[in-house]
Amino acid sequence: MSEPLRLGIAGLGTVGTGVVKIVRQKAKLLAARSGRPVVITAVSARTRDKDRGVNLGDYAWEDDPVKLATRDDVDVFIELMGGSDGPAKAATEAALAAGKDVVTANKAMLAHHGQALAEAAEEAGRVIRFEAAVAGGIPVIKALTEGLSGNDITRVMGVMNGTCNYILTRMQNADLSYEEAFAEADGLGYLEADPELDVGGIDAGHKLSLLSSIAFGTQVNFDGVELEGIGSVTIEDIHQAADMGFKIKLLGVAQMTGRGLEQRMSPCLVPDDHPLGQLEGGTNMVVIEGDQVEQVVLRGPGAGEGPTASAVMGDVMDIARGIRVSTFGVPAPALEAARPAKGALPAPYYLRMTLADKPGALAKVATVLGEAGISIDRMRQYGHEDTSAPVLIVTHRTSRAALDEALGAMAQLDVLESQPVALRIERV
Amino acid sequence: MSEPLRLGIAGLGTVGTGVVKIVRQKAKLLAARSGRPVVITAVSARTRDKDRGVNLGDYAWEDDPVKLATRDDVDVFIELMGGSDGPAKAATEAALAAGKDVVTANKAMLAHHGQALAEAAEEAGRVIRFEAAVAGGIPVIKALTEGLSGNDITRVMGVMNGTCNYILTRMQNADLSYEEAFAEADGLGYLEADPELDVGGIDAGHKLSLLSSIAFGTQVNFDGVELEGIGSVTIEDIHQAADMGFKIKLLGVAQMTGRGLEQRMSPCLVPDDHPLGQLEGGTNMVVIEGDQVEQVVLRGPGAGEGPTASAVMGDVMDIARGIRVSTFGVPAPALEAARPAKGALPAPYYLRMTLADKPGALAKVATVLGEAGISIDRMRQYGHEDTSAPVLIVTHRTSRAALDEALGAMAQLDVLESQPVALRIERV
Repeated sequence: MSEPLRLGIAGLGTVGTGVVKIVRQKAKLLAARSGRPVVITAVSARTRDKDRGVNLGDYAWEDDPVKLATRDDVDVFIELMGGSDGPAKAATEAALAAGKDVVTANKAMLAHHGQALAEAAEEAGRVIRFEAAVAGGIPVIKALTEGLSGNDITRVMGVMNGTCNYILTRMQNADLSYEEAFAEADGLGYLEADPELDVGGIDAGHKLSLLSSIAFGTQVNFDGVELEGIGSVTIEDIHQAADMGFKIKLLGVAQMTGRGLEQRMSPCLVPDDHPLGQLEGGTNMVVIEGDQVEQVVLRGPGAGEGPTASAVMGDVMDIARGIRVSTFGVPAPALEAARPAKGALPAPYYLRMTLADKPGALAKVATVLGEAGISIDRMRQYGHEDTSAPVLIVTHRTSRAALDEALGAMAQLDVLESQPVALRIERV
Repeated sequence: MSEPLRLGIAGLGTVGTGVVKIVRQKAKLLAARSGRPVVITAVSARTRDKDRGVNLGDYAWEDDPVKLATRDDVDVFIELMGGSDGPAKAATEAALAAGKDVVTANKAMLAHHGQALAEAAEEAGRVIRFEAAVAGGIPVIKALTEGLSGNDITRVMGVMNGTCNYILTRMQNADLSYEEAFAEADGLGYLEADPELDVGGIDAGHKLSLLSSIAFGTQVNFDGVELEGIGSVTIEDIHQAADMGFKIKLLGVAQMTGRGLEQRMSPCLVPDDHPLGQLEGGTNMVVIEGDQVEQVVLRGPGAGEGPTASAVMGDVMDIARGIRVSTFGVPAPALEAARPAKGALPAPYYLRMTLADKPGALAKVATVLGEAGISIDRMRQYGHEDTSAPVLIVTHRTSRAALDEALGAMAQLDVLESQPVALRIERV
């Protein structure tokens, strides 16, 4: 049996504690599978005096994660502190400079600094692994980078924020308003300190930008992700979509088009008989499409101690086994700068608007759509109580640019009672 | 860039041709991802003069796969001939003895000779990879062996024979009898030359035995798989199951119990709101449960040129990248002999029988069940035309042994018009 692989863990929250438990409880299994003992030598966290339900007495303690990352008795630096910059980035850079491999669950750090960190790692001959950063326990980074590496990837899609999917599922199943479902999720502790990270699509957008890089061989470009949160989705939208055989999901989509790399994270309608439409609660799903494999769907828990620690340990075990793959699937200098697509490929859209109850209001809206070259597939005006009339329109395939032009023109009319909601209907 | 990785391909059917196409068309992509050129140097097949729609003129030809497997200019022997013994096994053994790595799609060979071949490979310092042998394009071997290696795997389940799932789905959706759906699948060329390999569960059982070995660190033990085909499932069963919120699937289940390793491949009832119940047509699905990751579900095409070639290429790319993992996840000598469980863990069962239309028939059946310690959850006697009465019973949890005892006792009564059908209701 070879030399032990020595881990230094920075960050002892839920995930860090979970990793400690696995390493302590499964020593024999991990050694049998990897061919060498996997041990923890040092740990670091903000507070030392806290009962984490796990014995840390065997490990050296460092207050400073940078010191931990550069210790002589650490082979792999495990970064579980979070935050795109600050200590997480400083310690990761220090670890790579000191010749350590790095395992991290930090999607924000990689979304913002992935290219620079990958270059630093590869120059130092080390690896950065981040299975836990995307879709929790689902081994999707491995599937995309390794298992499907014989494919030209044509599209990657995913529901990768469990909190948003929980909110949307609760609205649907318990007939709650967005505000009610949000409050429920908040009460259960599902929301980040800044809820906009969840419901604004930022967290899921970080994840999508990492998948894009691997799928298309491009430099991580989080700024190129079109972000739209779920705050504009109403219970009426969910009911209307259901009537037409759709579910509304915060869906990430990345595809390479003739006009550049398209990356979107936005609420979309998806067919309710596709696994994406059937996905309920906090579960995550990633759909990978390749020219050879057609469509592979991966589903699993997107968060939680066990699942996230499982992903971290998958990376640790790879390092223990000597598996070393470029961070984003090809050497970092070979990653091309992403050229963001101007606008998404055409699609049908779902539109909801409230019209003033005036003669000719609907005709004016229809005219504006026609003038923008958008044809209407279905239109429905439904029951209303006062002087405003909710109207639902499903368009045929149109560019988002034409749609935005039409929405702009509509705003000039004096018939809209509120800002229209436009949701893409994604082909799956 | 390193030395080229040189492939020798034996078997140029659908999958072999697909692999040739990928290597020819994606040379640049494969080299960028793996860090070295991936090239074919030699091929072999039963007939040389056949238009396969792909140019083989650049490659040396060998009539004898053993010669191909041992050529000096071959680094990786790709075995796509099939068959558990004969030329496939001879050539694989020759390749390993000559110091070649092996990639194969041959589930039958590995189900019968996996342990010996793994030992031979590891003694020679080579690897055998077989992603294409299980669940087509789904990278499930990689997920289980590597991505989830921080887990104690608690259960693996799968729908892994697309033909059976096609037949069952067509029965359900088009209200066909088993015979009609079978004939349809046959007409579409979905069935093996010996259909029993498909509908008897043998092919899927081979796959399950490979997953079991990795999941539980045991030697492949196909003989330990309890096999039951789908031939006894009727359209009535499908309707009755649907009424209760279930679908019938040919489901493989492997789990380690206190009484040994349980491996079953049999038609089961699964809830229609679980991804297993929602799986339609020829698509495959594997469900992996671990103590950390909870439940991960992988779904994708189970057969076809592109998906299977994608899996073969995933293995080739791993070898090109220097990824070398023990065949079944731990070194072959460390795999324990599987101790097959005597009988499956208890579960509820669905029973269908036809009773002679005599007074007291149902009471006799109920008495027999009670005497075997089996309590009845639901019972339904439904409309009938002549003198026989179809009866449906759902039991509470019971051992299969108790059930078989009851079925044996029932056969002694003079009230059964035909052999009862018993299907397990699997908890998912």
